Amino acid sequence: MTQSKRPGSSSAETARLLARRKRLLGPAYRLFYREPLHIVRGEGVWLIDADGRRYLDMYNNVPHVGHCNPHVVDALTRQMSTLNTHTRYLHGNVIDYADRLLARMPAALDVAMFSCTGSEANELALRIARAATGNIGVIATEFSYHGNTQATAAISTEDTPESERPPWVVAVPAPDLYRGQHRGEDAAARYADCLQDAIATLGSRGIAPAAFIVDTIISSSGVVAPPPGYLARAAAIVREAGGLFIADEVQPGLGRTGRHFWGFEAEGLVPDIVTMGKPMGNGHPLAATVVQRALAERFASKTSYFNTFGGNPVSAAAGLAVLDVLERDDLQQNALDVGEHLKAGLGRLAGRYPSIGDIRGHGLFLAVELVEDSDARTPATRLAADVVENLRDRGILTNTIGPDANILKLRPPMVFRREHADLFLEQLDEVLAAR
Amino acid sequence: MTQSKRPGSSSAETARLLARRKRLLGPAYRLFYREPLHIVRGEGVWLIDADGRRYLDMYNNVPHVGHCNPHVVDALTRQMSTLNTHTRYLHGNVIDYADRLLARMPAALDVAMFSCTGSEANELALRIARAATGNIGVIATEFSYHGNTQATAAISTEDTPESERPPWVVAVPAPDLYRGQHRGEDAAARYADCLQDAIATLGSRGIAPAAFIVDTIISSSGVVAPPPGYLARAAAIVREAGGLFIADEVQPGLGRTGRHFWGFEAEGLVPDIVTMGKPMGNGHPLAATVVQRALAERFASKTSYFNTFGGNPVSAAAGLAVLDVLERDDLQQNALDVGEHLKAGLGRLAGRYPSIGDIRGHGLFLAVELVEDSDARTPATRLAADVVENLRDRGILTNTIGPDANILKLRPPMVFRREHADLFLEQLDEVLAAR
Repeated sequence: MTQSKRPGSSSAETARLLARRKRLLGPAYRLFYREPLHIVRGEGVWLIDADGRRYLDMYNNVPHVGHCNPHVVDALTRQMSTLNTHTRYLHGNVIDYADRLLARMPAALDVAMFSCTGSEANELALRIARAATGNIGVIATEFSYHGNTQATAAISTEDTPESERPPWVVAVPAPDLYRGQHRGEDAAARYADCLQDAIATLGSRGIAPAAFIVDTIISSSGVVAPPPGYLARAAAIVREAGGLFIADEVQPGLGRTGRHFWGFEAEGLVPDIVTMGKPMGNGHPLAATVVQRALAERFASKTSYFNTFGGNPVSAAAGLAVLDVLERDDLQQNALDVGEHLKAGLGRLAGRYPSIGDIRGHGLFLAVELVEDSDARTPATRLAADVVENLRDRGILTNTIGPDANILKLRPPMVFRREHADLFLEQLDEVLAAR
Repeated sequence: MTQSKRPGSSSAETARLLARRKRLLGPAYRLFYREPLHIVRGEGVWLIDADGRRYLDMYNNVPHVGHCNPHVVDALTRQMSTLNTHTRYLHGNVIDYADRLLARMPAALDVAMFSCTGSEANELALRIARAATGNIGVIATEFSYHGNTQATAAISTEDTPESERPPWVVAVPAPDLYRGQHRGEDAAARYADCLQDAIATLGSRGIAPAAFIVDTIISSSGVVAPPPGYLARAAAIVREAGGLFIADEVQPGLGRTGRHFWGFEAEGLVPDIVTMGKPMGNGHPLAATVVQRALAERFASKTSYFNTFGGNPVSAAAGLAVLDVLERDDLQQNALDVGEHLKAGLGRLAGRYPSIGDIRGHGLFLAVELVEDSDARTPATRLAADVVENLRDRGILTNTIGPDANILKLRPPMVFRREHADLFLEQLDEVLAAR
């Protein structure tokens, strides 16, 4: 499918593309890797560059059921050849999709509202939380990412330093038991209690909390899986102060953790609002905000909601097709199986390479934290960057994450199998051995 | 293609869908028409309901080159069968698309940044304007609509009453020469000078303006085409106060006005930022923020920009295909021709029906303002609602707009031809005659 090229022709083409890109898209865009990849084709867990070279994709969660999944492509093609309008006419797709999504939720979460991106889903969550509570404060975790709009960038503490945050934003530490300030048996409670301080800080500014928003596996902080009890206690604290608990499932949701369909289910907790995005449409822009009916009613008493593209028949067809494949191919179970296999393999490598300081996460959402010194746990930022680049050169795509960018983030499409895990483990072994 | 049904079966199905929709999507969603339409198929300017009944679509601008345009569907299908990733790998599509969009712009507007919706495009515009100017104030027109996120809802004065607007938002009247406070020869200047008052109001709150944002044909106010000189003078005033001029081209852009490719070109004005959305991908969620390089550089010195779905290879393929069809079929010229034809026909009806108080707009973006009394210009809100419903019953889809909902908004797909205009004019004549 990819035409082979004469040696050098594609690197010249890449250089031309790079120059045009910089000129036309401007300076705010970033590319992955020291030598950027010019990817031209995708299939399952594979990405293929302009030279026909294959890369194992261990990073992209957007192609949830695999790059160019034919069932999803067919569903999109059929629907967009038939009709694409919006939610101001009746159509079965968005209703069927809402039905199937809500069937995956606790009964109390019974209303689904649609948008196009995780940023929009979180924007709507904040609007509903503020309308329903009458409060404006938002508590987020340190080094969080929740979107690229103004309000979601303000609560993305990774991107907005404390000095630039509006007064209605306060951050609490992510409940990191490897590197954080609390590591003992009471760590979950002590981290949750940080919300009391955050509420007091807001109070000192005359602000009450509308919500605590948190990834149920905290991604940007380094794929921190909250310790048991943390989310439930944090939810109780923010509710006591009149705020809501918003579970951001953009990354952990849709079966990725293997154990549950949504990250929040690990604690039997029922959030007030759940947001989701990236993987829902396998690359088609689709996102949702799921809320309890009483909250939707309070929001609707103040305003109506319309999103031109959100929940249109084509987007809903993409969402339905992704659920079809997830269920038909039992990909949640696959995430659990392959995730355990991968974790076990990483554990064996950790026994041989002291630079692997921690392995964490669930299912196909894992992190490998690299350290200079396993006792001091000094972040191995340079090593992590080199590992990512060496893996890329060996045909495996990963990236770093966390405040010190010393953590490998592993978050492949859900069709990632044991054989792919073995290939990665073999290459990681060689990369670490060569250092 | 649509199967015919036994009488009554589709209305029973519609009732079931309505009940499920209300339960699953909650109370914040709205449907068009007293009897909502259950649309199942689209083709060109036509929408077809579950009973196989055809409706002439005079309202939807999202299917810019026609419902289910085969060139766009083919381009999307080909690209999504091949690759769909994001802008952190190199890909030609987003670069080619940026190139073709920017070639349609004044030379100074030389950087294109991509997102998924008009809300996101305006969010990014506001972030850039604030980062570049160091100011936070935003001036918008009264009864405007710029999006559904928190910040864009705040500047959507249609949705956010003055008492609920944050202090950084001030509204100026739309330059409406039919109904507004200024109607004389100096109306353009007097309306533009309202920005001085807005800047003074912001100043009294200790706030300087980051931007004036305006549709270049002001849609929600009732398709108000700014009088010559208004936009240029308004831009000069906001720039003098340290702010930027943002042209919201979500509705007037991409050739719809017939005269120009972008609404701002009517004045030879070069905006600092141009935003666009709805019609770009013919229904695929695609939007852009085009800025002058110096502004992009000031933004990039503070933060980077990434939008997971924005500018991906599939979205860019949709955008390229829409430009292909616009150019190949000379649809801007068609908008001019058919728009003039439609306006002339409406003019003839106005001679016979005094309830037609005003006809305005350009190309295929027109408004028919209905009044109780042509001297007093009393808004005919009830009449307008009845006309919309009667037209719907006769197989023609329009809707009302404006603060008094007495204005018919005509904004069909760009493949709308003279024969379609004639069909509409004939039906509108009969509807008005029957009253």
